[in-house]
Amino acid sequence: MEKKFVEELTSQKEDFSKWYTEVVLKADLVDYSPVKGCMVIKPYGYAIWENMQRILDEKIKETGHVNAYFPLFIPKSFLEKEAEHVEGFSPQVAWVTKGGDEDLFEPLAVRPTSEAIICSMYSKWIQSWRDLPILINQWANVVRWEKETRPFLRTTEFLWQEGHTAHRTFEEAEEEALRMLNVYKEFVENDLAIPVIAGKKTENEKFAGALHTYSIEVLLADGRALQAGTSHNLGQHFAKAFDIMFQDVDGERKYVWQTSWGVSTRLIGALIMTHGDDYGLVLPPRVAPYQIVIIPIWKNETDKVKVYNYIDEIYEVLKKYFRVKVDRDEEHTPGWKFNEWELKGVPVRLEIGPKEVEKQEIYVARRDLRTKISIRRENMIQDLENLLKDIQKTLFERALKFREENTYEINNFEEFKKIMDTKRGFVKASWCGDGECELKIKELTGATIRNIPLDWKEEEGKCILCGRETKIKALFAKAY
Amino acid sequence: MEKKFVEELTSQKEDFSKWYTEVVLKADLVDYSPVKGCMVIKPYGYAIWENMQRILDEKIKETGHVNAYFPLFIPKSFLEKEAEHVEGFSPQVAWVTKGGDEDLFEPLAVRPTSEAIICSMYSKWIQSWRDLPILINQWANVVRWEKETRPFLRTTEFLWQEGHTAHRTFEEAEEEALRMLNVYKEFVENDLAIPVIAGKKTENEKFAGALHTYSIEVLLADGRALQAGTSHNLGQHFAKAFDIMFQDVDGERKYVWQTSWGVSTRLIGALIMTHGDDYGLVLPPRVAPYQIVIIPIWKNETDKVKVYNYIDEIYEVLKKYFRVKVDRDEEHTPGWKFNEWELKGVPVRLEIGPKEVEKQEIYVARRDLRTKISIRRENMIQDLENLLKDIQKTLFERALKFREENTYEINNFEEFKKIMDTKRGFVKASWCGDGECELKIKELTGATIRNIPLDWKEEEGKCILCGRETKIKALFAKAY
Repeated sequence: MEKKFVEELTSQKEDFSKWYTEVVLKADLVDYSPVKGCMVIKPYGYAIWENMQRILDEKIKETGHVNAYFPLFIPKSFLEKEAEHVEGFSPQVAWVTKGGDEDLFEPLAVRPTSEAIICSMYSKWIQSWRDLPILINQWANVVRWEKETRPFLRTTEFLWQEGHTAHRTFEEAEEEALRMLNVYKEFVENDLAIPVIAGKKTENEKFAGALHTYSIEVLLADGRALQAGTSHNLGQHFAKAFDIMFQDVDGERKYVWQTSWGVSTRLIGALIMTHGDDYGLVLPPRVAPYQIVIIPIWKNETDKVKVYNYIDEIYEVLKKYFRVKVDRDEEHTPGWKFNEWELKGVPVRLEIGPKEVEKQEIYVARRDLRTKISIRRENMIQDLENLLKDIQKTLFERALKFREENTYEINNFEEFKKIMDTKRGFVKASWCGDGECELKIKELTGATIRNIPLDWKEEEGKCILCGRETKIKALFAKAY
Repeated sequence: MEKKFVEELTSQKEDFSKWYTEVVLKADLVDYSPVKGCMVIKPYGYAIWENMQRILDEKIKETGHVNAYFPLFIPKSFLEKEAEHVEGFSPQVAWVTKGGDEDLFEPLAVRPTSEAIICSMYSKWIQSWRDLPILINQWANVVRWEKETRPFLRTTEFLWQEGHTAHRTFEEAEEEALRMLNVYKEFVENDLAIPVIAGKKTENEKFAGALHTYSIEVLLADGRALQAGTSHNLGQHFAKAFDIMFQDVDGERKYVWQTSWGVSTRLIGALIMTHGDDYGLVLPPRVAPYQIVIIPIWKNETDKVKVYNYIDEIYEVLKKYFRVKVDRDEEHTPGWKFNEWELKGVPVRLEIGPKEVEKQEIYVARRDLRTKISIRRENMIQDLENLLKDIQKTLFERALKFREENTYEINNFEEFKKIMDTKRGFVKASWCGDGECELKIKELTGATIRNIPLDWKEEEGKCILCGRETKIKALFAKAY
């Protein structure tokens, strides 16, 4: 009984993809829905998203943005205004063609992203330099018709935030795009404990319609990369398509410069695939639905009363400081519960039996290292605060160490190919800057350029494929 | 210059409907979008919704519910499973018939409400009485294809929360439906300062698919009623349609009993139409985006420095206690700003010039009564806290007084008709309980039964239309 979940869970080594699917279902994060490619985010999974939202929304507001809400539907003609944008997104659009019994004159796209509808409003709202900058964010659902889906990582509908800003100058837009990239980087590293590499996307990989795109990239435990967030300098592409002009201080009418940026429920996938282990989820304390779970242990009624009295007392104190749950269920053994809450990734488990009551102690198990210690009741707040901080830090450091151990600097194409075929990981390699070479490398190895990292210095080298001299170092990986 | 907005705003008496449209646009709450019937909720309007969400979400969680997220799309065959449900909603459904370039085999409804998709999941999740109750809420967008729309009150897409619960017994479901009705009543009365009448809908007016529906009804300033929230006891209708069964403690397989309940961005419309006046919005402090706005007044640079120093000091203190904004704009005169912030309904305005600095005072204008007083700087926190509480209370009392003055107890049909034709308002009248009579009254007067109020006692009387003896007293009104 005690080993139930552990035995049932496929190990990461055996089949990472299967492990992932099992974990998201068994830990009650999601369920499949009757709509192809759409998932149900169950309460335990949604609570992670709510914690992410709360933290990120605050950061978005601190940087001067306000929230608003734009329509779900985008008329076809609006989506078509920006040529690259429609080319990139139209294969993925769900179309509403009927309202009630009436066939629509013009089909409506269910938003795959909101540039087109938001830009149409900005062209109305912006007249003068005094109206700038416009700094708006939206929390919303979006739909992209996907052939192959996987919970959190790629689903037909997903939840996200999308920021859309308009500025007077290129420089302001560029500064904004980089500011938000950095907000994402800090959020993902500090709150999700996931190290990221921030960089610029190549022309082939940029957002459809952008001048250029920045991204943060994560190395997952199976050696694949995941794009965890993007920030685009849209230049004047949409401004020209939607006629968003302002009268500048010099009296001239000019097009605005724009950005957009977003992160989604995909981050939950990144969380699972970065920290999870063969026992299930491992959640960073800052976004875990419960930071602490308390398991009562007793064998007879006398003990039960004592144990619950003790637990009730400490719970009343702990709940003021932490997100904490007492597992009062009497259907299962403590051992079963240990496994269940390990599977669900709760950072800290308190096991409390008659011995703990007698000694006025608490037996504490940490999920990340799976180690146990006893702490004194009178020190519990401080000790648990320190422990949660240490878990958050340990998770980040462990993930960083993994990434460093799985990042290779390579100069030889055969070696490059071999890494991509076997252990995968991040590869730092020289690239000539030619999109043709990039596509050829993808064809031959399955690896794409994730980005050109912002903090990698230029270095003399030869393109990993064609051998031409170059100063560009690119980050390659096989990606989700 | 100073009267700009006041002069431009149509008065409520002249044309209430025009006043409403002008206010929502000029106060920057919404804008029309290029998608028919869909509005853009602008940042100032969305901030009201965020405040409502924050307060109500907490109440929903305090009553034991958790949030989750279900797909936007519902396969046609699922919507059709509950006969009354599909009949009620299908004329209003937006249909997705194409994904990318592929024609869908089965059209997908864009959710008009989520019973059908949620019930399909509950039938999978519920096996035993131990799985009950299920208490889930969702914050989401929904779409109902409307012929005539009006910002907030009726739009093709709107934002709402929808609770969906499943229980062992009828009694538990009934208790839940009434509990949530009461949560809504307290929220709308305490936080939005809008008095409501809670009651039971008639068979004609209940939710499509429900056993019965409860509602809270508001009397707006133009004498029309608005349904501000509903809570449904769904009985076993959906359980039978979706085969949601559980093994009960007695070993028997039984259908669950369900509820659903929701409030939407329509509440913002209720807020505007209850408290607004000829100067614009009047927002209750508990949900106002800014509770206090500070207007600097100065004529020369020496004064400006003094005034801003003073304002900066008090702002640093006030912002810890209130949502407060300093209007630092230098394009407009203080008089223009007074009108602007009156239009936007900010509960309290602080006017600060050299005189206030010298006397260490603050000149305070309250939006609801449009009166002004001076307060001492050293007492400002306490004085402003009391003032905001008083405004919240005054708004509620004023609205309650208006409702009482516009509620008529009528026994004579001609008189009933006359009231509906002229001043409108709430009418308390006897009704035989026959749906035919109800429909006839609607045809003849335009009035519907809003609900049978829960706290109206049974009284002997004669049906206002047919004269049959009855004990039922119903709440009639012309409604939005």
